[in-house]
Amino acid sequence: MSVTRRVGEFEIISAISELVSNKTGARGVRIGIGDDAALLRTDSETVVTTDALVEGVHFERDWITPRRLGARAFRVASSDIAAMGAAPRYILLSLTIPADFARRDVLACVGGLVDDASLTGASLVGGNISSGSALSLTLTVLGTPGRRVIARSGARPGDTVVVTGTLGDAAAGVEQLRGGSRRGSLIERYRLPPSRLALGRRLARGTDVTAMLDLSDGLAADLGHICKASQVSARVKLEDLPVSSALTAYIRGAVISTSAEYAMRGEDYELLMTVANGDAGLRRVARACKTEGVAMTVIGKIEAGTGAPRVLDGEGRELGAGWEHLVD
Amino acid sequence: MSVTRRVGEFEIISAISELVSNKTGARGVRIGIGDDAALLRTDSETVVTTDALVEGVHFERDWITPRRLGARAFRVASSDIAAMGAAPRYILLSLTIPADFARRDVLACVGGLVDDASLTGASLVGGNISSGSALSLTLTVLGTPGRRVIARSGARPGDTVVVTGTLGDAAAGVEQLRGGSRRGSLIERYRLPPSRLALGRRLARGTDVTAMLDLSDGLAADLGHICKASQVSARVKLEDLPVSSALTAYIRGAVISTSAEYAMRGEDYELLMTVANGDAGLRRVARACKTEGVAMTVIGKIEAGTGAPRVLDGEGRELGAGWEHLVD
Repeated sequence: MSVTRRVGEFEIISAISELVSNKTGARGVRIGIGDDAALLRTDSETVVTTDALVEGVHFERDWITPRRLGARAFRVASSDIAAMGAAPRYILLSLTIPADFARRDVLACVGGLVDDASLTGASLVGGNISSGSALSLTLTVLGTPGRRVIARSGARPGDTVVVTGTLGDAAAGVEQLRGGSRRGSLIERYRLPPSRLALGRRLARGTDVTAMLDLSDGLAADLGHICKASQVSARVKLEDLPVSSALTAYIRGAVISTSAEYAMRGEDYELLMTVANGDAGLRRVARACKTEGVAMTVIGKIEAGTGAPRVLDGEGRELGAGWEHLVD
Repeated sequence: MSVTRRVGEFEIISAISELVSNKTGARGVRIGIGDDAALLRTDSETVVTTDALVEGVHFERDWITPRRLGARAFRVASSDIAAMGAAPRYILLSLTIPADFARRDVLACVGGLVDDASLTGASLVGGNISSGSALSLTLTVLGTPGRRVIARSGARPGDTVVVTGTLGDAAAGVEQLRGGSRRGSLIERYRLPPSRLALGRRLARGTDVTAMLDLSDGLAADLGHICKASQVSARVKLEDLPVSSALTAYIRGAVISTSAEYAMRGEDYELLMTVANGDAGLRRVARACKTEGVAMTVIGKIEAGTGAPRVLDGEGRELGAGWEHLVD
């Protein structure tokens, strides 16, 4: 239709198609970009997720280069695949492009996505381009399950609550970006979330991890998701949360005095998991993390009950139910 | 993150999850809505496509009810599955919701989608919700190939060019909507595109159809896609294009004097195919169309060469290369 299709759209799809065939293999792709649909080889089970980055909501255009934005979109979407213990294989990209977003920026964005994905063996196999007032990238990622699929619903009382990496950096980075900064390690943590794919896949080989998800909504909300799906509760000590030295340095000058509040804001894309089998289970998980070069920290315990996770502050006082007040 | 997630988001996802488990079967769905990713049974090959409907680009909110918008989104996305001769099986929905789009409208929209999809055996298995200034629905549909997959690249010189249904109705409907009308069969054709899934699947049983796509960009552009992918050219007579009586009645009073120009604007979601094996092939295709209750019309021939399709007007004069001037 006249309003929705421009001659330029076909030209851009053609340029993307060339970029993809240059940069990634076509493993399992029988029909790729350019037909009505892609035709893909799949296994007897497929893991699939979709995620969107919307300008004005998840990012501003002057926060991040188009190339990095493409890579970030892949990291964010494939983080859900990591949290299932699966491997990403095929990607579809639906782009909404404002009139003032240049052709070279579109190609840089797709190039950043394709390059970052190719490190994991995943290929861009199709997509869609539309005009629109806000730039947005909606990714669908199809993945291959690992030996086991780790859902959110397997946590049991007595399991240990573990997180990877450090928490709150990306949220602090967003605060700095809003304040006008454009450089620094916290901002970089926002721009390019960690990839926990290799670790997720490795953890799916064993049976120690009973539930797992990626921290996108914030620790409070995300631990609540596990508790709800598993019909358990949890106890977490705020002072045990892993904090980077960059965040420690930053909060000295910030209005908010505790790093934990940043961990509640999400966007970390670290793994949050519950670990069974006592000390032996925890040792095996620690070994897997070490092999993959990922830090891990014990932050709490799963408990019986179906209430919201209980959060204890530095003096052992219980904070309000569900931490909702921290999710501002 | 504070800006991207609201407590209401989880509540809506929960409501959608209930709506889905009430209304559709969970055939093949091992893990559905509510985990990081869906876990699905798949065959050795999967067909997958993504498509977006964006407010202000593809629709205006006062053109269509939320419920119908959901159904339209499924029709538009699954049309690509029909054009491959495949069957839709799983759907992921990424929604961008403006602040003034009510919770009940979100649920009506998802309900319309789920109900229309359930008629074809397809289930909503996952998705994503984000806030945003424009309402948008991005659907990814995974499908099961038919006996054969019909790509765009198989057209050969001598093949007959065939379309289903009538062309131009939806584009005329859009024109009426822009003009302020809200009723009538042309507008209904825009609101709910035809479903050609059963026919596509049936045509994939035989070997007569050599190339196929769904008419979304307009006849000129779409026939050009087949020609480019197949490295052939084509000849089409404008006067042979199938026109509905509603469109014939409408264009009497319109500035644009020929119904063919509406067919160039796209949004018809009819099938465009090339048919081999001469009259016998054409008879078999006609029988398949009759069985499925779908009208079909021969509109041209595939020719040797790699130029743009040649279009002949009523006096047999050739129109300009590529018909680009008609795609306004």
